Amino acid sequence: MIDLQRLIDIVGPDAVLSGEDVRSRSVSWVNPGPCQAYAIVRPSTTEQVARVLGACSAAQQPVVPMGGLTGLVRGCEAGPGEVGLSLARMHRIESVDPVGRTMTVEAGVPLQAVQEEAERHGLLYPVDFGARGSAHIGGSVSTNAGGNGVIRYGMTRDSVLGLEAVLADGTVISALNRMIKNNAAYDVKQLFIGTEGTLGVITRLVLRLRELPRSTQTALVACNEFSAVTALLKHMDASLGGALTAFEVMWNEFYRLVTTTPAKGTPPLAQDYPFYVLLESSGGDETRDQEVFEVALGAAIEAGGVADAAIATSKAQGESLWALRDDVEQIYGIGMPVTFDVSLPVAEMEGYTGEALTRLEREWPAYRRFVFGHLGDGNLHLIVAGPPSREARLGIERCVYEPLARRGGSVSAEHGIGLEKQPWLGLCRSPAELALMRRLKAALDPQGILNPGRVLPA
Amino acid sequence: MIDLQRLIDIVGPDAVLSGEDVRSRSVSWVNPGPCQAYAIVRPSTTEQVARVLGACSAAQQPVVPMGGLTGLVRGCEAGPGEVGLSLARMHRIESVDPVGRTMTVEAGVPLQAVQEEAERHGLLYPVDFGARGSAHIGGSVSTNAGGNGVIRYGMTRDSVLGLEAVLADGTVISALNRMIKNNAAYDVKQLFIGTEGTLGVITRLVLRLRELPRSTQTALVACNEFSAVTALLKHMDASLGGALTAFEVMWNEFYRLVTTTPAKGTPPLAQDYPFYVLLESSGGDETRDQEVFEVALGAAIEAGGVADAAIATSKAQGESLWALRDDVEQIYGIGMPVTFDVSLPVAEMEGYTGEALTRLEREWPAYRRFVFGHLGDGNLHLIVAGPPSREARLGIERCVYEPLARRGGSVSAEHGIGLEKQPWLGLCRSPAELALMRRLKAALDPQGILNPGRVLPA
Repeated sequence: MIDLQRLIDIVGPDAVLSGEDVRSRSVSWVNPGPCQAYAIVRPSTTEQVARVLGACSAAQQPVVPMGGLTGLVRGCEAGPGEVGLSLARMHRIESVDPVGRTMTVEAGVPLQAVQEEAERHGLLYPVDFGARGSAHIGGSVSTNAGGNGVIRYGMTRDSVLGLEAVLADGTVISALNRMIKNNAAYDVKQLFIGTEGTLGVITRLVLRLRELPRSTQTALVACNEFSAVTALLKHMDASLGGALTAFEVMWNEFYRLVTTTPAKGTPPLAQDYPFYVLLESSGGDETRDQEVFEVALGAAIEAGGVADAAIATSKAQGESLWALRDDVEQIYGIGMPVTFDVSLPVAEMEGYTGEALTRLEREWPAYRRFVFGHLGDGNLHLIVAGPPSREARLGIERCVYEPLARRGGSVSAEHGIGLEKQPWLGLCRSPAELALMRRLKAALDPQGILNPGRVLPA
Repeated sequence: MIDLQRLIDIVGPDAVLSGEDVRSRSVSWVNPGPCQAYAIVRPSTTEQVARVLGACSAAQQPVVPMGGLTGLVRGCEAGPGEVGLSLARMHRIESVDPVGRTMTVEAGVPLQAVQEEAERHGLLYPVDFGARGSAHIGGSVSTNAGGNGVIRYGMTRDSVLGLEAVLADGTVISALNRMIKNNAAYDVKQLFIGTEGTLGVITRLVLRLRELPRSTQTALVACNEFSAVTALLKHMDASLGGALTAFEVMWNEFYRLVTTTPAKGTPPLAQDYPFYVLLESSGGDETRDQEVFEVALGAAIEAGGVADAAIATSKAQGESLWALRDDVEQIYGIGMPVTFDVSLPVAEMEGYTGEALTRLEREWPAYRRFVFGHLGDGNLHLIVAGPPSREARLGIERCVYEPLARRGGSVSAEHGIGLEKQPWLGLCRSPAELALMRRLKAALDPQGILNPGRVLPA
């Protein structure tokens, strides 16, 4: 392990934590136990990050990059013998360009601070998810976070124009592009997006902003058939001409749970439909957007397939519809939750959920099953809840993951792999793909000191 | 050089061209002279591509992947001692998924065939550019082509969900993902998008399709100030809530040229404004979209800044406005054209064009200067035309490229680097970035047989 004095020489004594100072911190949001890292170092500049990594490289010291520690797959948990590299002190919003619609920030800025700064300029940073208050923007990029607006604005990858990153050997890669179009040789920033800190440490970012929507339309729609859900997706997307911002679906069991006491929500539509769709569009014409939305939805009702619908007529009503979708917490009261974040082609979803749910019911009848998610993006969340048991967890994972493989699905839609999902990675990535990933890892981090053992199984 | 019999053993005698059969073909669209390649091999399957590359790898035989040969930067020109690997026989559209809105194709399908097949399913493949009839979809992905709809739909990269590629050593990488969201480890497809065939040969693709727009609105707007142009971009983008599909700008000299005899176009607006903006939006509500568009444009006129405007009231009128923008050919009659495809932050454009045009006028007064482009994406095309001269070409390139560097611009927005733009790559990429690119090249193609010397200077 590296001599801590070498790190202190670079960042100063108050920026290197060890012993009790480390132990008094939680490992991560999903793992509240005491952090067992050898040390946590908190550089304030890119140059310090580069020198820290250079020193760790020379000492063959494993390093785990740390953002807001809100990742869900244990990709950011520094353990014994590892140095945690926290970006928390690099939290400066450097500039906003309202004409080019970009923001340049350090990696440690919380997502919510980025969103709020954009809004102050009449602009939108469109990536959004529950951990916004704690998650660092750098971490959200290194995990290519998804969230709610993906159907319109894409994943985090689509909101990153440029970045600066430091390689394992301390080399600073400055690729702070500010344009939508730049085909001057390889787009090296892609190496650091979604690779969970295994190929480099992101230190600065140029983010793409959008014009802030002026109006929002929200509705909850019930369908009796899955085919009606997919027809509605196509119809609304086509009718709204680019304005559709969310197409979230709740299966019956989930809807009943979040609209029944002890949940706070009440049912805006009867509780006996198999599928509920939460629709949202955002536009720029406050006078006409609601009408366009209602005309489009009206045409869907007239065409049949939509069993019932509730259109929000105020911001508060829209928020109360979203509150149902977001009340995942209700499930945690039931028992050990086994949570999934899978994706698969929309046309495969009905067959897939049928197969997985049937198998779960047969093999693990004591566990309740909830399905919901960002259907418009091909992303489903399943949560299976019941008595705590390691054996049950593994069995439930087999029931959910195995039917994905032959349907071209993915074991991780938006959360990443980290340590948590490694056992299942081979179900959706071929040996040749995994070998290519290892080639990249070896090329960029030949000693394997950056987030070792994460993402790619050792 | 490889023994051609080895290639014939893999693909059959009619799929290996040599001697006169090669010489009778053009090098490329921009270089109509006879092709000097050692041979051209035309495999019909991915397996054949893999075996050809495996054999070339064993023989250390340089290979140049060939699509429709419409690239503009000489990245696809096979020369003496090189084997051209043509994907022309792999032109099968394999499937369309109208629910998941994807199309799976072989790499040799022409762009236009992809667009037309999408339309038959009521869907849109949104990438579009002039060479659509000849360009292969595989080539468009390997160059990350831009074009007209980028402001709404992004570059080609944003329309690729999955791909299959063959590495230099013949390894097949099958990453045929069909979902918008897939964070299961590294997104290896990014390695083959925009790397111009230097890291692998794309053989198959899963493309993302969109719902086909039902209405199109087009207008030509004149502005007296550049600041009014950028204000209009923000205003229209915000007002149209996701529907803006083009924001093209023509500087005065370009507009005058394409609206004056011998050009076929006539001026819809007076010829004495400094800037002309071609606006387009596409929506899903034929009844209301035109009104929303006119209300938004009306508000811009009322706010001042817009000097004059002509709104198309028919499809034919819209097409005639686009015909002006597309009549670049007028410039070629003037003399040797030196063409540029640069990008830079929109806020820098006025200062940049002022500097570059002033310098061109001072240093090369005998040459006429035309500026136009996809301003909404930060992409400008400059064409400087006059007496043929190698010295003038180099001098003109200096005038245009040098002022880009300190403004964070790029010497290639959408055309790529190939051989053509290598001398200027160092102006917009740092030595550390270039070194990282070389690391990637060495990791994926250690012998350097794939498109050698292209993109990265030797």
